[in-house]
Amino acid sequence: MNLPSFAEVRDAAARIAPHALVTPVMRSDRIDALVGAPIVFKCENLQRGGAFKYRGATNAVWSLAEDEAARGVVTHSSGNHGNALAMAARARGVPAHIVVPEGAVKAKLDAIVAAGATVHRCEATTAAREAKAAEVQAQTGAVLVHPYADARVMAGQGTVVPEMLRQAPGLDTVLVPVGGGGLASGCAIAAHGMDPSIVVLAAEPEGADDAARSLEAGARVGPFAPHTICDGLRPLMGEPNFHALRDHNVRVLRVSDAETIAAMRLLWTELRLVVEVSSATVLAAALRYPQYLAGRRIGAVLTGGNVDIDALPW
Amino acid sequence: MNLPSFAEVRDAAARIAPHALVTPVMRSDRIDALVGAPIVFKCENLQRGGAFKYRGATNAVWSLAEDEAARGVVTHSSGNHGNALAMAARARGVPAHIVVPEGAVKAKLDAIVAAGATVHRCEATTAAREAKAAEVQAQTGAVLVHPYADARVMAGQGTVVPEMLRQAPGLDTVLVPVGGGGLASGCAIAAHGMDPSIVVLAAEPEGADDAARSLEAGARVGPFAPHTICDGLRPLMGEPNFHALRDHNVRVLRVSDAETIAAMRLLWTELRLVVEVSSATVLAAALRYPQYLAGRRIGAVLTGGNVDIDALPW
Repeated sequence: MNLPSFAEVRDAAARIAPHALVTPVMRSDRIDALVGAPIVFKCENLQRGGAFKYRGATNAVWSLAEDEAARGVVTHSSGNHGNALAMAARARGVPAHIVVPEGAVKAKLDAIVAAGATVHRCEATTAAREAKAAEVQAQTGAVLVHPYADARVMAGQGTVVPEMLRQAPGLDTVLVPVGGGGLASGCAIAAHGMDPSIVVLAAEPEGADDAARSLEAGARVGPFAPHTICDGLRPLMGEPNFHALRDHNVRVLRVSDAETIAAMRLLWTELRLVVEVSSATVLAAALRYPQYLAGRRIGAVLTGGNVDIDALPW
Repeated sequence: MNLPSFAEVRDAAARIAPHALVTPVMRSDRIDALVGAPIVFKCENLQRGGAFKYRGATNAVWSLAEDEAARGVVTHSSGNHGNALAMAARARGVPAHIVVPEGAVKAKLDAIVAAGATVHRCEATTAAREAKAAEVQAQTGAVLVHPYADARVMAGQGTVVPEMLRQAPGLDTVLVPVGGGGLASGCAIAAHGMDPSIVVLAAEPEGADDAARSLEAGARVGPFAPHTICDGLRPLMGEPNFHALRDHNVRVLRVSDAETIAAMRLLWTELRLVVEVSSATVLAAALRYPQYLAGRRIGAVLTGGNVDIDALPW
């Protein structure tokens, strides 16, 4: 199974340091009181490109040998990973090809174009996305950088954990959202590389709970039709990501969309942060599951801020 | 004229350190390109209470002798200073009396009440506010902490400058909004205490340009009827504040509300920050006046984030 080691997370941290921001951590007395435990929020919504995805994409792009990089990179994404990969490729001065399915949010498509990538459109199915990416790869020799089932990407996403623990020493619990599982895998590997006693929790929408069901069943469940407002958490968890979460005893906490929207609003009123609805799952989970959080010191990752601010979900 | 010294700004920084946040600084390649010069933004919208006002209020409250403090503090404010003073008083465990004029935004009033202050209502005129505050002062012995014409408040607001220069070394230009002038005065004193060659600029709405007109005339102009969406910048500049701006050669840059609203939106799209419209005047000014900014390294203060996110001004 192609998973990164903790040493690769550390290498990734050094590799992305010239490019990615050290995002701030924030906290609130009122949120601590509501959760019943101290909780800090790592503000990847303020990362370049507005999401943690820039870490993984940057690590992948700068991991390539010169001759590989010169042929460019390709991925399929309707969202933050596509934009992050386009930005990372531009920073290195190499071509990026982003396969964007029909129905993608126009603002995200515009951002990908603005970052100088070549956009390839396809139908909005996983099969069509993968077929188009393979076609581009065959034509151009570009290197595929999968949004989450890629060790370089996972290592890059995992860099958020040592950074957060440096900023907020003494955390014993890491809480992240889980969708495809790139962030959750990287963070579990990084957390246990630093301290095997750290508890890693993942928040998942009830309407896209394949990670929870897969871990309960002991085997990865198959494709499903997601029903959640959390667009970033709809993908089926990747196969290597499943293994990472299982091997690192990651507990998945299901939350409803209503709880997540209320948490998104609370992050605004208490911390003046507007985050993507997917990001707010971590606070929703912290509020819903005190049994796993009492007495702990929690670091939660706010994954992104690419929101249509004129169409907030409440 | 009762102005703080630079030593008092330094004392304030030590005094507020256990309470106020070290807010992050942020920047964007695209904004740098639009401005034509490197510009960092000091995110006081992420300060406790959602505004830089917490610095000045905290310095004032913790400057008091025990017996003074025990009698409490009083101010008149319909906005961020009232909330900041209430929070600072609660932190010290002393009473706060906030005179709030009719017509104040309900959310700001609610925040003041939530911080445990006693609210006193009055008519929405300067005379009524001052009379009511004097009445409360006479009844309770509370210490008046004026929103801007107070040396302790100015010193506290000025602490933002050494903090920003530590985070972004090499800045040669400081750019802040000007309303009553507490922030602008404190920042001018702090900047020139650190380095007399720093240029201090202040952004002011065209519809409330009393600071610009006062400095042009060489004397403080009288009361006027403001016409600007920037509610935080409507007050008449204070008398000591006028002297500080004049003596520190602060140049005032007028901006229109339309420019400010566009800048507010740009801060969201580029930096994922939702700031008060008053805060966005600094970016509006940077975009409108390249003649004062070319070749410089700018630190701009985003003053607050207490926005009704369901009623954005575009």
